[in-house]
This record gives sequence, structure tokens and C-alpha cells, in this order.
Amino acid sequence: MKGVIWRILPGVPIADLSHDIGPQNIRQAALVLERTAHFFPAGTVHVVVVDPGVGTERRPIAARFGEQFFVGPDNGVCTPLLERAEQEDGPIEIVHLDKPEYWLDEVSDIFHGRDIFAPCGGHLAAGVELAELGTPITEVVRYHVPRPVFEDDVLRGEVMHIDHFGNLIANIHRDDLEPLRPVNVRLGQVEIEGLVRAFGEREPGSLLALYSPHYYLMIAVTNGNAATRLGAQVGDVVKVVPRRKKLGEHLA
Amino acid sequence: MKGVIWRILPGVPIADLSHDIGPQNIRQAALVLERTAHFFPAGTVHVVVVDPGVGTERRPIAARFGEQFFVGPDNGVCTPLLERAEQEDGPIEIVHLDKPEYWLDEVSDIFHGRDIFAPCGGHLAAGVELAELGTPITEVVRYHVPRPVFEDDVLRGEVMHIDHFGNLIANIHRDDLEPLRPVNVRLGQVEIEGLVRAFGEREPGSLLALYSPHYYLMIAVTNGNAATRLGAQVGDVVKVVPRRKKLGEHLA
Amino acid sequence: MKGVIWRILPGVPIADLSHDIGPQNIRQAALVLERTAHFFPAGTVHVVVVDPGVGTERRPIAARFGEQFFVGPDNGVCTPLLERAEQEDGPIEIVHLDKPEYWLDEVSDIFHGRDIFAPCGGHLAAGVELAELGTPITEVVRYHVPRPVFEDDVLRGEVMHIDHFGNLIANIHRDDLEPLRPVNVRLGQVEIEGLVRAFGEREPGSLLALYSPHYYLMIAVTNGNAATRLGAQVGDVVKVVPRRKKLGEHLA
Repeated sequence: MKGVIWRILPGVPIADLSHDIGPQNIRQAALVLERTAHFFPAGTVHVVVVDPGVGTERRPIAARFGEQFFVGPDNGVCTPLLERAEQEDGPIEIVHLDKPEYWLDEVSDIFHGRDIFAPCGGHLAAGVELAELGTPITEVVRYHVPRPVFEDDVLRGEVMHIDHFGNLIANIHRDDLEPLRPVNVRLGQVEIEGLVRAFGEREPGSLLALYSPHYYLMIAVTNGNAATRLGAQVGDVVKVVPRRKKLGEHLA
Repeated sequence: MKGVIWRILPGVPIADLSHDIGPQNIRQAALVLERTAHFFPAGTVHVVVVDPGVGTERRPIAARFGEQFFVGPDNGVCTPLLERAEQEDGPIEIVHLDKPEYWLDEVSDIFHGRDIFAPCGGHLAAGVELAELGTPITEVVRYHVPRPVFEDDVLRGEVMHIDHFGNLIANIHRDDLEPLRPVNVRLGQVEIEGLVRAFGEREPGSLLALYSPHYYLMIAVTNGNAATRLGAQVGDVVKVVPRRKKLGEHLA
Repeated sequence: MKGVIWRILPGVPIADLSHDIGPQNIRQAALVLERTAHFFPAGTVHVVVVDPGVGTERRPIAARFGEQFFVGPDNGVCTPLLERAEQEDGPIEIVHLDKPEYWLDEVSDIFHGRDIFAPCGGHLAAGVELAELGTPITEVVRYHVPRPVFEDDVLRGEVMHIDHFGNLIANIHRDDLEPLRPVNVRLGQVEIEGLVRAFGEREPGSLLALYSPHYYLMIAVTNGNAATRLGAQVGDVVKVVPRRKKLGEHLA
């Protein structure tokens, strides 16, 4: 893909956003994209190749979402970029990539990343207008992002992502959690008392709750691997519960 | 290696072609190189460091194969680039890298990638002529690429490569397979009926045969890992057999 | 981090020095930095994010060590760069990064790599003076690098690093070992006779001792994995012993 892009725009800077996306994991790719894309300069083209439907009827698309560009499959992976642009009322423009003159001469059935997305991304970066690359469309597949639920004093969410250190990141944002403090955090039978600010506030090996770099609730082990320790998986329920006096404290 | 190159030609764009080559696996490196090098712009320098013979009598070489340049060990890893250039009747020029003035001042016995190949690659990219870097040679080590055999209606090849999704890629090209269709594909005791075009044509978990992005026969599992499922390894026999009526169809 | 840097200095070349540092392994990061940084061009900015103390009282720092720049946590990871500059009597200048106007607007408690180090590194690369980014300091945390000990004809060191091929690299430099030759090398119950120059001097599967690309004593297996074979770990004792006649030779 880098070769294809550099044939169109020699030497344009390219960053690999992640090598850690699980095979065909649209949800994980969407999360990584959401949490990193806006740190890049305005006009950056984000080419996404997590594409389990390649070669089927799913459409190849390209889009402008606010100040960022997206090229990839219409499978929901761009939902967070789209929603962010909607919230910020930024410009939104989407096209169905249906002009083969901007693709490689031969297009395989299972690697549109190289054959369609990379060349279209290269042309975009080189200054070709979105409208040149395809036909405007208004609706795309949207990936449903699970939201946490608040009920009986308990905020109930789930593990959205496990990073390569084994940290568990839940779908519970700081904005939702802060008003409830002081709180404890539960995952399965484990209850963690309170939140800390940083790993180093506890001894190595300690299980702790804190905010992720993107300000979501994160369960971690200082210098260790929380996913392995707890046998946790994406989708596991995470609860934020009011912090009550412990039994010992009651009796005392 | 990137530091060494940038000392010679500051900021020249560098792509890591693969982090997935098995230790000292010349065959795998040759395949990756064959399938990707020609997508890069004319004049690209491909520096290869899969080099089990480093420090022995194997020669360091650099070459022009058609519009691409190669720098690396003379161990066969460049065979596919050489053969492609021969087939296309492109310019071929090979030198033995024997001019230490183009190397680092100190050369280790086990990392010529950093000490010889990177600096020579940097000088090539900076415009130094091949003939400046070494003495012309005409013969290099050639890696023998196994070819499939056709016998008694059966095309018999082998698994050449297992990619990081666990897909099995055989040495059977679309050009050899297409005239035989309809066919089934066998690996060990498993027989797969027909070829599909794309992963998404079958349910997740389905075992299927299709063409790889480079148009070789590939055995895969939709959203899964075929190598793990089948316990398959590089070198396993893959057969393409004529598609016959099944027993049930005979009786009907 | 790349996005943050490119917002400050669009397209500046960035290399990923290693993806193989163990979680929060300061020692390993310091070794990788020591062995690679000086190969980069003068003025290169090395941004380091191995940072177990992030969010605690450990300071963020930036420094000039000879011709290289460093940005990262004050946790000892820069010790080898500092010591090299001291040995070479190069210019040394260190600042405590305490000027938030050079950071991202919002700074998380656990990812200063993105929020402090990347932007300060970007500003340095863009030409901002060190003194602009923070307050000068003279003392930093120093990581203690274990040194080998010579006693009763035996040089006793330890495994400092295991690379991704499974090679064991000890803290015994060629300069310390050469005067002692001929020698054997011991790790646990295993004794390796003599040193070879290159992997290829022995059959695949052979256990051997040789010099690493950075001229430290290395224990390896030709085309294999020494760490797995020997069950070795970082910190294991490595001894260099005088080479004596073997029992069979005595009797003969």
C-alpha cells in the first residue's frame, strides 16, 4: 500500500496507526481511529483496511469528516469520525468510490486496501477533489457503539477494548463517572476501591482503576497485565457503584 | 539502519516492508519481496537483511533489476526480482559490494544490514552509481522456487507461505488453475468444494479456497485462522482435483 | 504521537526505534537507545515513552547529549546517552520540562508521551531552543548499569538483554574479553567452547558464543532460539573462563 501511494505522491509521509487490530475487528479499528485521528494535522487522509466484507456488495467509500479525510470500506469503521463531525457541526462529504480510473489497473477481490483505498488515498493527498473520486452519497453503514446505562445508583458499561499492555478500557467516559464519585469499580467478582490518577500510585502488581489516555474508565495492573490476571474479555460487564463503608468500618 | 541511511540522505522516505519474516527464512523473504517490490516507484532501493550466512563467505551484493534496486546478501533472496526482470527483458546489473569506502567505518561480523547494506542503499538512493559501489558480477545464488506438477488430472503444489492471518498460500497461480475449473481443493484429509471470490461469501468460520491478493491459490477461514484449524505448515501438499459428482448425487 | 509531532512540524521524518521493549522495562529501553541513537544524524530528537512513573512526581525532561537530543521521563532511561556524552566530553544541557505552553492543551495523567514529550520533541525538531522548553537542571536519575567482575581468572557478568531472535546479550564487552582469550563461556551448566565470528560457522541448531552487533558477548543458536533452548532470562550469570585442555586431551 505504501508503494502504491508513493507511486502517486512520492515520499508523502505515512504513519502506521496500529499493528494491533485483531483480524477483521471493525469495533476495535473504529475505536483506535476515533481516539487518534484528530491528533493529526488538518487534511490528513486516514486509509482503513479492516474489511471483512471485501469483495462482497459492501461499498468502498471516501469522505471528509471535519478536517480529516477517510478512505475505506462502508462497514461502520468510520462511524466515530462521522459522529464527531456531526457533533462539531463540521463539514461532511461522502462519496461512493465508483471511478475505476483512480484505482490500480487490476483489482483483486480480497485486497481493496492496495487496489482501491491506497490509490484513492494517494490521489486525495495529492489534491484531487473528493467529488472527482466517486458519486456523492448521504447514508453510510453506522456501527452501533454501546452506551453505558445508569440504574439504581449503578453505572453499567462494558469492556470496549483491551490494549497491548492488557489494560481493560470500558465505554464509561470521565464525564459520566465524575459526578458519581466516590465510587468503586466492579468486574465480575472483583471490586476495586476508588480511582487513582496514575499507575505509580500503587505498588507493582496492584489492581487499579484510573482514566485511560482518552479519559475512559480503565482497569489495569501496575507494571502488569489486567486482562490476563482477571481473564477478562471485550464485552465483559463493568459496573461503577457508590462507595459504601466496608463491613469492618460498620462494626467499628 | 534508518539512522545510517538518514546520515547519508537525511529524511529519505523509508518503509518497513514486513515485520513478519521468520528468523532467517530466505524463502519467505523472497516471496514477500516478489509480491510487493513492483508496487513501489521506479528507482526504489530494496534493502534486505534476511541473512543467515552473514560473516561467512557469502557475498554482499547490490543490483538493478528492471526499475527496482536491490541491496542485500547473495543468498537467493533476490531470485524473484531477478527472474521478473529476465522475463520482462528489463535492464539487469549486479555488483559485488567490495568497496569498504561506502560502508560504515567498523563492520561487525553479524550485522551487515546496518554496516554494509544500509549505507550502500543510502548511497544508491542518493544517486551514486551501482558501478561505483562494487565490482560487476553476472552470476548470483538462485533460490529454487518449487513449481506445481500436473499429473493424472491433478495439479499438485504446496503451501508456500502462511500469512499473519493464518491464510495458507500455495504455489499454484490463477493462470494454472483457471483452465481446470470446476475443481475442488485438497489439503491432507480435507477437501474444499470449489473456489469463492471473497471471504464474505461464506459464513464466519467457513473453510474456503480463493485467490490471494497476488492471485495464488489460498486456503482460508472466514474471519478465522486456517493454519491453526488445519494444523498446516509451509511445505504441506495442496492438490487441485477435478470436481466430480458427490456420492449422494450419483445415487439420486 | 506522530500526529501531534506532525501538527507542529508537518512531515518531519519519524522512525520507530523499537516495538520490542517489554512493558515499562527501563533497562531494556536504555540499552536499545544506547546501541542505536548514535547512528542517527546529528540533531536527531529521541522521544522515549517507557515511563512507569507517569503521573507521579517523576519529572519530564529534555536534554542535549553531545550531538543527540533526548525527550522523556527522568527515570534513568537516558543514562547511557548521558554517560557517552560525558566520556566524549560533548556538550550536555538538560532542562526540566515545566512550560505547559509547549504541551498539548489537555494533559492526561498517564500518557505524557503524547501530551508532553511528543509536542516538546516536535518543537525541538522545529528549532525551538532547549532553554525555551524548561528550566535548566544538572542532576537526573541515573540508571545503574551492572558491570562485569573479574575474579580468580573468571570474568563474571550477566544477561542484559534477550533480542527477538532469542539471542542472549551479556554485559561483557569485547574490550574486556579479548585480552583473556582463548576462553570458554558458561551459562548455568552449559559451557561453550571458544568464540566464533558468525552464525554460519556452525551447523543450524548449534549453540555458540560470538560478539553482538554492538560488540558484547552473545550466546546464540544458529538459526534457532537460545533463550528458549536454555530457559535463560535477563539477569542470569554469564562467566568467561580460561580455556583448559579437556579431560580427554589430558589423558592422551
